[in-house]
Amino acid sequence: MSRIDGRTPEQLRPVTIERGWSKHAEGSVLVSFGDTKVFCTASVTEGVPRWRKGSGEGWVTAEYSMLPRSTNTRGDRESVRGKIGGRTHEISRLIGRSLRAVIDYKALGENTIVLDCDVLQADGGTRTAAITGAYVALADAVTWAQGKKLVKAGRQPLTGTVAAVSVGIVDGAPLLDLCYEEDVRAETDMNVVCTGDGRFVEVQGTAEAEPFDRKELNALLDLATGGCADLAALQRTALDRTAG
Amino acid sequence: MSRIDGRTPEQLRPVTIERGWSKHAEGSVLVSFGDTKVFCTASVTEGVPRWRKGSGEGWVTAEYSMLPRSTNTRGDRESVRGKIGGRTHEISRLIGRSLRAVIDYKALGENTIVLDCDVLQADGGTRTAAITGAYVALADAVTWAQGKKLVKAGRQPLTGTVAAVSVGIVDGAPLLDLCYEEDVRAETDMNVVCTGDGRFVEVQGTAEAEPFDRKELNALLDLATGGCADLAALQRTALDRTAG
Amino acid sequence: MSRIDGRTPEQLRPVTIERGWSKHAEGSVLVSFGDTKVFCTASVTEGVPRWRKGSGEGWVTAEYSMLPRSTNTRGDRESVRGKIGGRTHEISRLIGRSLRAVIDYKALGENTIVLDCDVLQADGGTRTAAITGAYVALADAVTWAQGKKLVKAGRQPLTGTVAAVSVGIVDGAPLLDLCYEEDVRAETDMNVVCTGDGRFVEVQGTAEAEPFDRKELNALLDLATGGCADLAALQRTALDRTAG
Amino acid sequence: MSRIDGRTPEQLRPVTIERGWSKHAEGSVLVSFGDTKVFCTASVTEGVPRWRKGSGEGWVTAEYSMLPRSTNTRGDRESVRGKIGGRTHEISRLIGRSLRAVIDYKALGENTIVLDCDVLQADGGTRTAAITGAYVALADAVTWAQGKKLVKAGRQPLTGTVAAVSVGIVDGAPLLDLCYEEDVRAETDMNVVCTGDGRFVEVQGTAEAEPFDRKELNALLDLATGGCADLAALQRTALDRTAG
Amino acid sequence: MSRIDGRTPEQLRPVTIERGWSKHAEGSVLVSFGDTKVFCTASVTEGVPRWRKGSGEGWVTAEYSMLPRSTNTRGDRESVRGKIGGRTHEISRLIGRSLRAVIDYKALGENTIVLDCDVLQADGGTRTAAITGAYVALADAVTWAQGKKLVKAGRQPLTGTVAAVSVGIVDGAPLLDLCYEEDVRAETDMNVVCTGDGRFVEVQGTAEAEPFDRKELNALLDLATGGCADLAALQRTALDRTAG
Amino acid sequence: MSRIDGRTPEQLRPVTIERGWSKHAEGSVLVSFGDTKVFCTASVTEGVPRWRKGSGEGWVTAEYSMLPRSTNTRGDRESVRGKIGGRTHEISRLIGRSLRAVIDYKALGENTIVLDCDVLQADGGTRTAAITGAYVALADAVTWAQGKKLVKAGRQPLTGTVAAVSVGIVDGAPLLDLCYEEDVRAETDMNVVCTGDGRFVEVQGTAEAEPFDRKELNALLDLATGGCADLAALQRTALDRTAG
Repeated sequence: MSRIDGRTPEQLRPVTIERGWSKHAEGSVLVSFGDTKVFCTASVTEGVPRWRKGSGEGWVTAEYSMLPRSTNTRGDRESVRGKIGGRTHEISRLIGRSLRAVIDYKALGENTIVLDCDVLQADGGTRTAAITGAYVALADAVTWAQGKKLVKAGRQPLTGTVAAVSVGIVDGAPLLDLCYEEDVRAETDMNVVCTGDGRFVEVQGTAEAEPFDRKELNALLDLATGGCADLAALQRTALDRTAG
Repeated sequence: MSRIDGRTPEQLRPVTIERGWSKHAEGSVLVSFGDTKVFCTASVTEGVPRWRKGSGEGWVTAEYSMLPRSTNTRGDRESVRGKIGGRTHEISRLIGRSLRAVIDYKALGENTIVLDCDVLQADGGTRTAAITGAYVALADAVTWAQGKKLVKAGRQPLTGTVAAVSVGIVDGAPLLDLCYEEDVRAETDMNVVCTGDGRFVEVQGTAEAEPFDRKELNALLDLATGGCADLAALQRTALDRTAG
Repeated sequence: MSRIDGRTPEQLRPVTIERGWSKHAEGSVLVSFGDTKVFCTASVTEGVPRWRKGSGEGWVTAEYSMLPRSTNTRGDRESVRGKIGGRTHEISRLIGRSLRAVIDYKALGENTIVLDCDVLQADGGTRTAAITGAYVALADAVTWAQGKKLVKAGRQPLTGTVAAVSVGIVDGAPLLDLCYEEDVRAETDMNVVCTGDGRFVEVQGTAEAEPFDRKELNALLDLATGGCADLAALQRTALDRTAG
Repeated sequence: MSRIDGRTPEQLRPVTIERGWSKHAEGSVLVSFGDTKVFCTASVTEGVPRWRKGSGEGWVTAEYSMLPRSTNTRGDRESVRGKIGGRTHEISRLIGRSLRAVIDYKALGENTIVLDCDVLQADGGTRTAAITGAYVALADAVTWAQGKKLVKAGRQPLTGTVAAVSVGIVDGAPLLDLCYEEDVRAETDMNVVCTGDGRFVEVQGTAEAEPFDRKELNALLDLATGGCADLAALQRTALDRTAG
Repeated sequence: MSRIDGRTPEQLRPVTIERGWSKHAEGSVLVSFGDTKVFCTASVTEGVPRWRKGSGEGWVTAEYSMLPRSTNTRGDRESVRGKIGGRTHEISRLIGRSLRAVIDYKALGENTIVLDCDVLQADGGTRTAAITGAYVALADAVTWAQGKKLVKAGRQPLTGTVAAVSVGIVDGAPLLDLCYEEDVRAETDMNVVCTGDGRFVEVQGTAEAEPFDRKELNALLDLATGGCADLAALQRTALDRTAG
Repeated sequence: MSRIDGRTPEQLRPVTIERGWSKHAEGSVLVSFGDTKVFCTASVTEGVPRWRKGSGEGWVTAEYSMLPRSTNTRGDRESVRGKIGGRTHEISRLIGRSLRAVIDYKALGENTIVLDCDVLQADGGTRTAAITGAYVALADAVTWAQGKKLVKAGRQPLTGTVAAVSVGIVDGAPLLDLCYEEDVRAETDMNVVCTGDGRFVEVQGTAEAEPFDRKELNALLDLATGGCADLAALQRTALDRTAG
């Protein structure tokens, strides 16, 4: 039984990773997972937040946001409402944790890298696209920092690569990389963040309708591990290209 | 090798669930997991939020907060800072989703139940204690609503029970129900929410240091499933008692 | 004519003062005036706010808050609304002023003590219970600071004791320590804060309905003075016990 | 021993009450107590806040604010800081309660009167000047509402008059109507709000340094009662004039 | 003397107007003026804000925002700071007024169109690019609304076209369409909004250093009028194409 | 054809500039343009904002606000709403820029002058009255700073004078200094800020209804230039008087 958009259950949507999308940022990527498009920039600054000063260690953090009309119905701007919603907070924190999992703070030195992930168009999987794209922007920013000697010679702040994908159970079938239409119908929804060597950084599964059992959980984890491996290959290919 | 407080790896801390801790709330519980103490109240009001009016369905939501000196160092009040932090948002949403997993909105009818989970003292596992205690407060509130005929005769808004526990890998060993000291040393930290019949509502695992592999993930899930079963039994016992 | 709960006009509700209610705070008390229960913690930190640095003097301040379901109807959290209401502000300031009245800033040295008074259950008189309980938490915190040598040997930061009680005119009769039901019916409502030697720190009387004359004012002051003396005795007794 | 500005202990500063200071407001007054100048406007609108609709009763409320440079050192605007401070909240509430003490809500009908009291220049006693001036603006607004038939013929929403004055103990001597320089040196500070017939609406006494005893309290109340009577006479005179 | 980027004084930067850049919005444009890139979406909703209900007239408004790393140095997100800055407010209002100048509210009927202008990359002239691009998105949204019969047959809500350009005096020379480097060196900076028939909707000139005289003002207005005519032609060309 | 209030098209309303209106501020003015009354204070403090420290240069900034009942209908306080509106932001920025146009930062030295412009009564032209009055308060503050030796001997921080006036096209006729009634009927509205030597600091013209052509723009600029010259003369006269 084929999916809405004709994919097989274990197939990613078409993924593109365009580097060099900003002339200002030290790293920048426009990532798309199908119709989901996220603009990721990495900003490097010397120095770290106050609570980390003098530690000799760096810091990496992330902010996620959706443009008001990235979705089908226009959402209010959080700047206009004057506060950040719970979902935004949650996703920003997830992205930050995911990237920090592959950072060696000591090697980074007292530098801060902020990843901004702004969703230009949403069609499901915005947080997983954001993590996948932000990693590439981060890698470019680290290279830039090495070039500028902000990072000491011979130190490699990146300890590995990281990518993320969503999986879910739709009409009883485990599927990889849900688009919006699948996502709203999913009984269970899971976001999985893996390193390039296939280990887990984050596993977040939620029963949207019926609770799920161990067998379903295992099926989803299998799918996600495969999807993340595919994404890791795409990240490598993108990083091998000369940035546009 | 025994744990800081002498427990075995698969042993919960002493858990107490005291019902009837508020004379005002429709359901109220003081739950403790060791030194972690959370005060949970369930407030029932007729009617639902605007976006749900006329649907014939109810709503359940939760708010989590820590008293400023529930922790070792006093934290600023979020009311004074004028905004809610990301961690608070995230946990409030987790508690709400967990409880809604065992609610039949149609059977609840157009009533709203708000669960307030205020941490009086924190020693690790505040969110899992909150979910476990809030379920009992919710059950009492549902009974109250049935008594008041807010819920139609013969309808059961609760479709099951729900409890939560933390697990983690500390010094390479998978442990159940981490206290604060274990939590800060954990390489991997996972919160698992299960229904009384042993299925998963939420699985949230995070690598704090090294990424974790599938085998470790499985060990943690095994521990968590057992812990939740123990908590479900304690919830049943508490609900069988006449409330104080 | 006896009162709703059978008390005589000049009788306090049952008052309990439990010390050592938090394992983290330097001083902590659960105080109850009848069904009103307030959790008071005292947090000691070295140093003072910026405007006081280098003065050689300490600082004491307080924050009051009600849990959302401490009252009969659930109130919105001020953290969620994003701002603190006028009543909360007013009571926090009253508690702070009351405690500072018995503090010798020079003897305290450049240390700050913050009193958090969180109302777990409200039945009238929450601010007076908060002041009475917070004093005991403050006394424990001062002792702790002396033990830690934060306060110089031989210095006594406390210049006396302080307690508070409400009085009011209900159906023409002056009554001590109003419960909620009496409070809403009171024509005049007064909160009085006294030192242990019977002098006034604060007198706040408000005509809720008819203005009051000098004779009524005198009757209320007589009642309040007696009530505060009773509370001072209860504070002494509590402080003489070994903390739980 | 005479005061800084040559007054006797029981003497008010020069008080002026200028009506008709705004062409827009239904009642408006520039009140001065010596160098303290407060601009009070009364705004009448048909209808009441939602919680009072259908009650047939009106509402009166007040907002107090200080212009940033009304004081010796410029203060930040609360609009720029994005929140209202505790002192502002407290005084706004006091003014509102004081004026409501002489309002018959039923006679006012479902109309709302908002009193805005903006301090143009501060020299002690801004809240008492505000109450005294706001009463006159309120009286003009009520007359306007009667003229417009918003208030039913033959109904008198005002049940009396109200004025306020500060008293304090400075260098051991009880003084009436403290200017700023006296206020900062006062050991005890009290604000008293009286009706025109000499009864109390509010009594708020605070020990700034040493607690005060009953005898001192009595001396202050005597002074305040006399001062309020003088202010009531000045209000009558102002209202007898044709507004400018 | 040629400009930094080789342009003549009266020459625009390369301008591109790409329509159909969002699959969700009723109108969407990616507009670029050289390296300045603004993403404009037009969102149509039935109904109008409360203050306009029942008028039979529509409403058009705009919100402008810069992505945090659209500039050379990362700026804080206004959503994180919790308030909108003065510059953002000012530009949002300017865009809204400019577009409303070519709207016939009656013909639009009770529909609301919100223009979101998010700056992806900034290099001077973001507000003028936003107005120019937003007009095209607005035109597409109006066509969409006509197709959906939200706008009555035979009514044309657009009364003309509108475009904007910056001009300034740099080193004494009047220049059209300043890039960032020119903008920071400009003695006078002016933004001019014109209709397609060459009349003025907005003229905002500011002396950044020396005040400017009438002759300089005239030279700037001449340049701006020409630039807006060029932009109007580019808008027409873009709208003549079939949207991507 | 004469105007509502009998003026000729090129005639200002009666303008008064009263200095010394505050005993606290270093400069203070009550300025009135007809029934528009704005209270302007200039506050001098040593030091500059952080981003300017060590530059040897001063700073001048402004904050504009309307009292809630300065207008015909009471407006909410921005402090109560918790945020500053776009119009307030815009006008505060305009006033600040206008005054900075006549300041020599180096000559001012590392001192800050804040201009507060609070509208006591509004009848059109509040921003132009504010700029005109604030200049006089600024001049007095500069003189004060010279007297206090905050400004080095022989340095003159003021490089000229500045005033502002509104002009507009009402019923096809260009008019100077619009009152509120004219303002709401104006097809085009322009605010012009000029130096005493007749050059432009700001020109802000807006088509409220029909766009305006170059000829109309020229007519408005002619009127405004004349009006600003008249205001400059009034400023000189005011500054020649000894402050009240």
